[in-house]
Amino acid sequence: MIRMSSSFIRTLREDPSDAEVASHKLLVRAGYIRRSAAGVYTWLPLGLKVLRKVEQIVREEMDAAGGQEVLFSALQPRAPYEATGRWEEYGPLLFRLQDRRGEDYLLAPTHEEMFALTVKDLFNSYKDLPTTLYQIQTKYRDEARPRAGLLRVREFVMKDAYSFDISDQGLEASYAAQRAAYQRIFARLGLETVICQADAGAMGGSRSEEFLHPTPVGEDTFVVSDGGYAANVEAVTTLPPASLSAEEIAALPAAHVEHTPGASTIAALTDFSNQAFPGQGPVAPSGEWTRYEMLKHLVYMLTMPDGSTEPLVIALPGDREVDPKRLESSLAPAIAAPFTDEDFARYPVLAKGFIGPEGLGLDAPSKIRYLVDPRVVPGSRWVAGAGEADKHVYDLVYGRDFTADGTIEAAEVRDGDPAPDGSGPLRKTRGMEMGHIFQLGRKYAEALDLKVLDENGKQATVTMGSYGIGVTRAVAALAETHHDEKGLAWPRAVAPADVHVLATGKDAAVFEEAERIALALEAAGLTVLYDDRPKVSPGVKFKDAELLGIPTSVVVGRGLAEGTVELRDRAGGTSRNVALSEVVEETLAEVRA
Amino acid sequence: MIRMSSSFIRTLREDPSDAEVASHKLLVRAGYIRRSAAGVYTWLPLGLKVLRKVEQIVREEMDAAGGQEVLFSALQPRAPYEATGRWEEYGPLLFRLQDRRGEDYLLAPTHEEMFALTVKDLFNSYKDLPTTLYQIQTKYRDEARPRAGLLRVREFVMKDAYSFDISDQGLEASYAAQRAAYQRIFARLGLETVICQADAGAMGGSRSEEFLHPTPVGEDTFVVSDGGYAANVEAVTTLPPASLSAEEIAALPAAHVEHTPGASTIAALTDFSNQAFPGQGPVAPSGEWTRYEMLKHLVYMLTMPDGSTEPLVIALPGDREVDPKRLESSLAPAIAAPFTDEDFARYPVLAKGFIGPEGLGLDAPSKIRYLVDPRVVPGSRWVAGAGEADKHVYDLVYGRDFTADGTIEAAEVRDGDPAPDGSGPLRKTRGMEMGHIFQLGRKYAEALDLKVLDENGKQATVTMGSYGIGVTRAVAALAETHHDEKGLAWPRAVAPADVHVLATGKDAAVFEEAERIALALEAAGLTVLYDDRPKVSPGVKFKDAELLGIPTSVVVGRGLAEGTVELRDRAGGTSRNVALSEVVEETLAEVRA
Repeated sequence: MIRMSSSFIRTLREDPSDAEVASHKLLVRAGYIRRSAAGVYTWLPLGLKVLRKVEQIVREEMDAAGGQEVLFSALQPRAPYEATGRWEEYGPLLFRLQDRRGEDYLLAPTHEEMFALTVKDLFNSYKDLPTTLYQIQTKYRDEARPRAGLLRVREFVMKDAYSFDISDQGLEASYAAQRAAYQRIFARLGLETVICQADAGAMGGSRSEEFLHPTPVGEDTFVVSDGGYAANVEAVTTLPPASLSAEEIAALPAAHVEHTPGASTIAALTDFSNQAFPGQGPVAPSGEWTRYEMLKHLVYMLTMPDGSTEPLVIALPGDREVDPKRLESSLAPAIAAPFTDEDFARYPVLAKGFIGPEGLGLDAPSKIRYLVDPRVVPGSRWVAGAGEADKHVYDLVYGRDFTADGTIEAAEVRDGDPAPDGSGPLRKTRGMEMGHIFQLGRKYAEALDLKVLDENGKQATVTMGSYGIGVTRAVAALAETHHDEKGLAWPRAVAPADVHVLATGKDAAVFEEAERIALALEAAGLTVLYDDRPKVSPGVKFKDAELLGIPTSVVVGRGLAEGTVELRDRAGGTSRNVALSEVVEETLAEVRA
Repeated sequence: MIRMSSSFIRTLREDPSDAEVASHKLLVRAGYIRRSAAGVYTWLPLGLKVLRKVEQIVREEMDAAGGQEVLFSALQPRAPYEATGRWEEYGPLLFRLQDRRGEDYLLAPTHEEMFALTVKDLFNSYKDLPTTLYQIQTKYRDEARPRAGLLRVREFVMKDAYSFDISDQGLEASYAAQRAAYQRIFARLGLETVICQADAGAMGGSRSEEFLHPTPVGEDTFVVSDGGYAANVEAVTTLPPASLSAEEIAALPAAHVEHTPGASTIAALTDFSNQAFPGQGPVAPSGEWTRYEMLKHLVYMLTMPDGSTEPLVIALPGDREVDPKRLESSLAPAIAAPFTDEDFARYPVLAKGFIGPEGLGLDAPSKIRYLVDPRVVPGSRWVAGAGEADKHVYDLVYGRDFTADGTIEAAEVRDGDPAPDGSGPLRKTRGMEMGHIFQLGRKYAEALDLKVLDENGKQATVTMGSYGIGVTRAVAALAETHHDEKGLAWPRAVAPADVHVLATGKDAAVFEEAERIALALEAAGLTVLYDDRPKVSPGVKFKDAELLGIPTSVVVGRGLAEGTVELRDRAGGTSRNVALSEVVEETLAEVRA
């Protein structure tokens, strides 16, 4: 039993000055956590109980899915992370330090390398596989902008699991098992999640999904369709319009260059087209020209991981902007920067403001890589720069008049865009990443030479999966989702106590009866928070109970004269009187409902 | 149930090349831990189970003693540690790092500062006290020489508790409660410990005791007497001989300078004395001169924390050497270095090889601090250098012919020295520090301005205690103490499983029966390690079982034809056959005995 009179729990009436989101405000005000530095928090007694409950649910489901728990150090040497390239790739997100001998160490952001090396150390045969190992451990990331309390911090508890298989099918099965375990975990936690196709990003690998908890305070934008498609914006693929056949293309009008004085923007070019060639637009049924068919060309200078650079031209429908995150994700590990005037001077074929497909492509003399939006399909008709000032080409047909080196997913995704699987229009929503699962494949195993003997006695590289859940963040998400204007309202599975007993009033009999009930509830197997503070008014106790958010409260006070206590349900906001003789039974029924 | 056929357990037949002590060898060979860097280890599945069991015992006793569990970050900002001086004092033992903005952080070696600041943050009245908070958390220390597996590592799990009281008596009570909890913890763990008076060292504070586990591989030397005295060597106080009264002193012969050609060592001076003045020694009943009464003078240059220096002369009986650790501990935070030739040149009053008390002392013109061994009591008679070459003073009586600025505990402690409490002769033994409890007093609270309102409404500084248990090290100590030449032999309280079921032989019936028994034992509430590996010989399984050290094994194999299995007791090395029908009942009886 936690007695509030002697517990290290102090509630605050004011929101912390740096708090923007509800979970941050309430977790601090209710005395669950305390900030000790930017993005670094202390777990106070009630907060730690919630954290441990979340951990235990994760642990049970990991064990049920065949995972074996281990524990790695946060402090790890540089060499393995150097071998996989992550020592550099992580950039300023990695906490690096040196020991007294000047050796480089890091505080691990994840442990792919160390798990792979340990499996390499212990296993040597395909018979040892598959195996899935996990840990619930403290991770470090030097976030540029820690924010929102526990939502983005620099030290946090994470469950990270790693699967090791000999075959691709094995990896599929291990991945599926973790995926199913994640669904069970979030269901038990009472956290709605949407499984989104994700971009593997810096982790590499072939397939990846995110478990996103939909919430307006989320940092991730993802799209869903009514038909069940869900994807991180970075991972959305564009549903291209139908291509035309060679016959159909042959029937299209020939391309022709037009004088387009001053039409150096998409808007100006659209206006000009509607004035100069009214009713001849190729897409709108009315024949109106739209920004869509004004093919926009954007020029970037790419920097490769080895430091070399190369130019890139991207073409996309004129009504779309580039989404910087989608562009970054499509080009990774290369980094794109807009062309500078010096860059333009080096590539005279690129006439700023009037760039068109002419002269672009790896096969062209310019050798400039040229990628187009997936909507640029064979037979699609465009207006594009003619490569010189005040000239544009009309009826420029892809597949007939120009081709590209490939397509790129860089254009923004909009509400109403069709889902790539045909499941209906997409709508954007915000979410918080609760989990992320990756089919890493053999990237890490190759870098670290993780091989086992296969069935034929030959060395075969192991294929890996990596599976993370942000345990700290799950606590924040639970607080974010389960609260009202009065305070927290924990789901039973993670509440720091089953029941909150309040002794209200000054009468000694109230305290005696409350104590008796608290002890009886504890004897019945419940965890009890008992507000036994003398000289604290009923009003303050009620306010604190609402702020602390224990699912069920037993209020001992005025009803005692009639032999009743009040049973309150925090989430539902309801209450009822029960007879003293039935309080244990009734409370148990509520808690176990 | 842990099935060995699919578990991440691999035993090794060879000791790791870097292992010197049994716990290190066996924990690695049995697949409990794995090294990932110098002094940094990974907990494999069975090792983690032992660690968690030790943690849980510690947690239960902390809770029972009224402690409240919290969890602080390892990553902490510099400022609070700067305020208490520990940022500097910890020297190279502290892992320091910077974040992306260049702010200084550390990986906390202990958390006195952060606990004090959090109490300051939440509490403001004497009514809030006393309170004791604790955490079980990962600590970092950049040890110069990590060694012996888990015995001295750079990342480790520690339980650290901190008490906060308004009064000295309150601190005494909080300290006593923790001390009693420690006794229960070590008793439950099956770890013999001796409570030793300790030197508070860098932690500061007034009283401190260490819980030392006696073992030849321990790094600490401590002394015990048959009468129950125990102390860390640094903390031993010298029992001085009886002083003489003024009358008795008056009856002693006067001091006289003698020509002592070439007697520049204690040995030479003793020989010379026995030849020149046979039978006149003041201590031995025979009148023989001994090295004891040749008062040895040693000269040091002290460096203070602020960088200033000052000379120090120490005098001790000539038969004793200085114990560098006792000297260091007595002088801390000043650091002593032997006098160099340049130093001697600066202080001509110090005649190298013939130094005596003449001219020393803060009151003397030289202002050289002069401290003597506690055995130098009023009336004690000595031979000492006369301050010039080849001259010594005989019958030099302390309190009559010379005095000092104070005494110092710097001389070595020897087997046979009397315990200071009169409880008999001391003997030295080696131990491993398992826990350390400190009455810190107000040092940290003052540095961090931790005050509360007292009963009179005035600001009063809080007094603190600090209490640590090395959880990681406890696992090592358990392995060190509970093993034999064949492997580990865990006490039941911390064993990674209650029972080890072995299916031995090739017969399918053996595996079926073993499986049935394993499931039945699990259903009865036991944790089971089941060696279900096919194609592994009984010999290998027996060897692995001995190495892994589960307290009870059930061997299913040859006896099956007669309807029996074998029940083995790992620690006792005994075994007996039991009927199949009784195996669950008999095993339960063993486990719960």
